[in-house]
Amino acid sequence: MLKNNFIQEIYENHQNYLNKDIKICGWVSNIRDLGGVKFVLLRDRTGVLQLVFKKGITPEEEIEKSKELIKESIICIEGILTEGKSSLKYEVQVKKLNILNKPFEPIPLDPDSSTDAQFNVRLDYRWLDVRNRKVSAIFIFESWVAKTFREYLTDNGFVEVFTPKIVATGTEGGAEVFPVIYFGKEAYLAQSPQFYKQLAVISGLERVFEIGPVFRAEAHHTVRHLSEFHGLDMEMGYISSVEDVINTVEGFFKRMSEKALSDKYLKPVREFFNLEVSIPERIPRIPIREAYKILENYYGKHLEIGDDLDTESEKLLGEYVKKEFNSDFVFVTEYPWKVRPFYTMRKQEDNQWTYGFDLLFKGLEVATGSQREHRYDVLVKNLKDKGLDEKRFKFYLDFFKDGTPPHGGVGLGLERIVKQFLNLDNVREARLLPRDTERITP
Amino acid sequence: MLKNNFIQEIYENHQNYLNKDIKICGWVSNIRDLGGVKFVLLRDRTGVLQLVFKKGITPEEEIEKSKELIKESIICIEGILTEGKSSLKYEVQVKKLNILNKPFEPIPLDPDSSTDAQFNVRLDYRWLDVRNRKVSAIFIFESWVAKTFREYLTDNGFVEVFTPKIVATGTEGGAEVFPVIYFGKEAYLAQSPQFYKQLAVISGLERVFEIGPVFRAEAHHTVRHLSEFHGLDMEMGYISSVEDVINTVEGFFKRMSEKALSDKYLKPVREFFNLEVSIPERIPRIPIREAYKILENYYGKHLEIGDDLDTESEKLLGEYVKKEFNSDFVFVTEYPWKVRPFYTMRKQEDNQWTYGFDLLFKGLEVATGSQREHRYDVLVKNLKDKGLDEKRFKFYLDFFKDGTPPHGGVGLGLERIVKQFLNLDNVREARLLPRDTERITP
Repeated sequence: MLKNNFIQEIYENHQNYLNKDIKICGWVSNIRDLGGVKFVLLRDRTGVLQLVFKKGITPEEEIEKSKELIKESIICIEGILTEGKSSLKYEVQVKKLNILNKPFEPIPLDPDSSTDAQFNVRLDYRWLDVRNRKVSAIFIFESWVAKTFREYLTDNGFVEVFTPKIVATGTEGGAEVFPVIYFGKEAYLAQSPQFYKQLAVISGLERVFEIGPVFRAEAHHTVRHLSEFHGLDMEMGYISSVEDVINTVEGFFKRMSEKALSDKYLKPVREFFNLEVSIPERIPRIPIREAYKILENYYGKHLEIGDDLDTESEKLLGEYVKKEFNSDFVFVTEYPWKVRPFYTMRKQEDNQWTYGFDLLFKGLEVATGSQREHRYDVLVKNLKDKGLDEKRFKFYLDFFKDGTPPHGGVGLGLERIVKQFLNLDNVREARLLPRDTERITP
Repeated sequence: MLKNNFIQEIYENHQNYLNKDIKICGWVSNIRDLGGVKFVLLRDRTGVLQLVFKKGITPEEEIEKSKELIKESIICIEGILTEGKSSLKYEVQVKKLNILNKPFEPIPLDPDSSTDAQFNVRLDYRWLDVRNRKVSAIFIFESWVAKTFREYLTDNGFVEVFTPKIVATGTEGGAEVFPVIYFGKEAYLAQSPQFYKQLAVISGLERVFEIGPVFRAEAHHTVRHLSEFHGLDMEMGYISSVEDVINTVEGFFKRMSEKALSDKYLKPVREFFNLEVSIPERIPRIPIREAYKILENYYGKHLEIGDDLDTESEKLLGEYVKKEFNSDFVFVTEYPWKVRPFYTMRKQEDNQWTYGFDLLFKGLEVATGSQREHRYDVLVKNLKDKGLDEKRFKFYLDFFKDGTPPHGGVGLGLERIVKQFLNLDNVREARLLPRDTERITP
């Protein structure tokens, strides 16, 4: 390897490197030439290190080479790590410079100020935009959310599954799906792994999760929607009630909030973002019927019984639980049957309500889950009640003929979790290469 | 939760449970009624436990209930764990039975003998087939391979990325891609995350990996091909040569082979599969020119200089390294330019060869990698040399204008690794719900 260490390693274990020869590579983020001495800032995703080119220390020919340096040059250097005189704690007295590559045209976007540019321009030149360490921090955090989800569920007996993204039927009956031309057969891109994670539970894998792309052909133009995003999905068998699912989701957010402040992995993220969130021992659960009342009484906002929560209502409920419970989170439970998909289990006592819930995080829905209907005959009735064609779902109904444990699960939006944790304006900021109605490149 | 423990936990920590009341749930896999006593085998993905219904111990009404049990009933029981008299080490003297659900039609496939059925029938009723513990063991192993890949790369400074699966251009120039109908735009399903993992490296994320679906519209009907599978992809910047990539892949397989024999997670897998593989301290690297000679000299198999390896050649080379080096693995290196994609770096000394390699595992290609061409002008020349339209790849070429570190990477086939590790006949056995030209359900 040309490069063995990240800059973070040099800082963290500086006692091993101080006053010794080190080798390091990265991107040139800034150059200040003061005549007799030249300061170069070297950047990688984990930090910034000051390089010093100085007559007497740096050999003449290396100083000569350094004249070719421009912003965003890709270099490796050798030199001695010393205590820094500037605000940067350490610097390297350069003895050797190797320019690996550099821009050959004026760069269309300066990484170090890219966040000031229009978002569309940033996306057009995403490979420059992400060199901005505040931007790469978003993606480091995103990978950590996925990592934590997997570790948490693996610790709790879940197995990862890999289900098909090319499917014969949309989960919700065919709306908002992208058709695929598939060997002359009718086929679509999966809107969610819903049916298949249920199949996996019924198959005896019992507790499963999946992290994968989900596709939504919604012509939405909002800061919350993407036509392709990553879902964190899980499904679990042998539950007593939907509360088991809710508790599992709660445990995941608790683990994240605990680890976020100390995990070494997130050091480059904490430089730019405050990762503290307010999460009480028990996240409030509010049945949606109560939520209607809260909205009416506290905010004068009227929703009809049986309505879904709109964006404003979610925001207001977020404010309410923050004020009342000092919580950034709230589970809204027992969603109305009329706004939930056919596979949701309806409440036994009053079947206009369901065992379906959403998790709002700082007033935005980041998770949707429920206990699923596992009884074949009820499932058939529910399909009819939704006006869906039983024949189209035969392949799914068949799973339920051969014995099914009570089960439930949840789907979380990876990018939305990142957006809310980091207080980003737009979910697109949390997607490396977002796709929407207008954008399919780069 | 109705169920808190898996059967494996009862066996492993039997000292905590022996002669005590336990609760457990699962699938009924067998029933033997001897009149005064009834033996029921309870199955979950981690093990099998014998339940005993016996007058004097089991209350009369629970014995009455037990008459309704049929194979594949879903039950929870309470009872006392005792030392077993049969070949099964432990059994439960049942005091309470709860039948949660059961098949209401004759089951079309018996899970406990499902592996004897035709493979197509098994796939038609996959939710029954996977209840067979030898089959679920495959998927437990698969999740472990993915887990190990992530942990290994995370330990080595890699960040997980989530790249688009809806793309404007096929990686190899438009062949063998599935078209998607995407808001009236020309779009395809990604054949690989190649371009985007390179973008991520160039973006300063530097070392990245992704596990995600890849789509290949190949009308192949072989035991090695799927039209949708999961790729384990990684890409790394600041490499000295392709050897850095090869070493990283080698490290992954070494970690797997070391951990496979002891990891507790794999206990249910080791019951059915021998996870031992032969991996030497250094996996042999054989330039393809040497491979041609070996094939000719040892097996009388003639390939023209510059040919790709066919299936038989891979198998023979697998046999060769097993015999000569006692290795189940071999890296074949320096593949000919004419059989490698345009983004592969060509050998400096003789550009009919490349820095591209394959890893063969027991004679099957499981990984393809290379150093990538990172120099803009050479990349343009290579595109032309392949007869590809530069304009179609403009969006990709643009990444290389603003400074690019030397980099390389690899794509591994998750299902193929599982197939070879477990000595399965068909890669479809390692895919929960395989898709091919004929199959798009369940």
